[in-house]
Amino acid sequence: MIKLYGFWRSAAAFRVRMALNLKGLAYEETMIDLDAGEQHGASYLSINPHANVPTIFMDGVPPMTQSLAILEYLEEAHPTPPLLPADAPARAYVRALALIYAADHHPLIVPRIRRYLTGTLGVSDEQRTDWIRHWFREGLVQGEAKLREAAQAGRFSLGDAPTIADLCLMSQAMGARGFGITTDDLPITHRIVEACLAIDAIGRALPLKQPGAPASH
Amino acid sequence: MIKLYGFWRSAAAFRVRMALNLKGLAYEETMIDLDAGEQHGASYLSINPHANVPTIFMDGVPPMTQSLAILEYLEEAHPTPPLLPADAPARAYVRALALIYAADHHPLIVPRIRRYLTGTLGVSDEQRTDWIRHWFREGLVQGEAKLREAAQAGRFSLGDAPTIADLCLMSQAMGARGFGITTDDLPITHRIVEACLAIDAIGRALPLKQPGAPASH
Repeated sequence: MIKLYGFWRSAAAFRVRMALNLKGLAYEETMIDLDAGEQHGASYLSINPHANVPTIFMDGVPPMTQSLAILEYLEEAHPTPPLLPADAPARAYVRALALIYAADHHPLIVPRIRRYLTGTLGVSDEQRTDWIRHWFREGLVQGEAKLREAAQAGRFSLGDAPTIADLCLMSQAMGARGFGITTDDLPITHRIVEACLAIDAIGRALPLKQPGAPASH
Repeated sequence: MIKLYGFWRSAAAFRVRMALNLKGLAYEETMIDLDAGEQHGASYLSINPHANVPTIFMDGVPPMTQSLAILEYLEEAHPTPPLLPADAPARAYVRALALIYAADHHPLIVPRIRRYLTGTLGVSDEQRTDWIRHWFREGLVQGEAKLREAAQAGRFSLGDAPTIADLCLMSQAMGARGFGITTDDLPITHRIVEACLAIDAIGRALPLKQPGAPASH
């Protein structure tokens, strides 16, 4: 059985859950409570010295970290259904889009950054929330600009099946939604979010559906 | 001829230059002066609406952005010499390492973040410099932790030839050096930096060797 270490709210763990579900790979997830600091406990650090999620154990491979590296591994080791197109230029577009969300924007709002802002820089809670909202929004805006290049046709970022770009888009959009940022005025993004939400494998992976998430949903 | 849009100081453009040189691909680079705001000019925005570098035109493909997506494209379209190992678990390790530098840390110190810190949050120049130094250092420390997993043998992150992980490590280490952060106390990182600097294809790509760099070097 595949063993995933994640957290309900983690955008990076969410990406991996969606990919596992889409590829029909069964897994067991252990939630590491990032709010309670469990990622800094000796037990988890022995698995992942970077104190972040996700970490995944599968196929007898040493523990893998970094959601985009895990998605690429899943694609190579379990290629069906594909989450990347076949030709190199299309793959470059999909990967660039994924990186806009997962590299350029998501790392800006993770717990260690929030701690530095309030702890070291002494910004107010309101300023911290503004920071988070700003970069969630900016990621979606930059993504929409990239989507205009190739997502005019098809239901997803490229064509009629989800790719890793859509998984990263979803992780950004759902995180943003948690801070009151909608995609209503970003038409391609909004359409893709709706198309993703209609897929059961993605719906089951949603942050608010995971153990530990706020019960109001 | 391959046409690259970069900037002397850009870590992301540096990664692409190293990869092009290692693969023996000739290119012409146009420098977009990020300090002067040239990335926000109408002329460059028509090429890259994200107002960042690098952008690359090659092989008749639409303009490609995002350094890691470009490195993957180069690997797929121009596979010799390889910049990724052959088997999936090793590729996951190399990609995870690359992402520690290029996704988790580098986006924290780019111009738009520096502007937000001083402009919107009103932090002092000293606090901004501390932020930059902190995240450069943290990227190198997290990289060293990952390197302990597999870089004990061999001259580079994995084995005796550079991979995309080493290119991302170099971009982080050279950027850090510009802020007085050394790798002296990170033995694996330090050894890999030295091994990279001994390669002409990497040496020619160094930020301080590019047009527009400070003349004192």
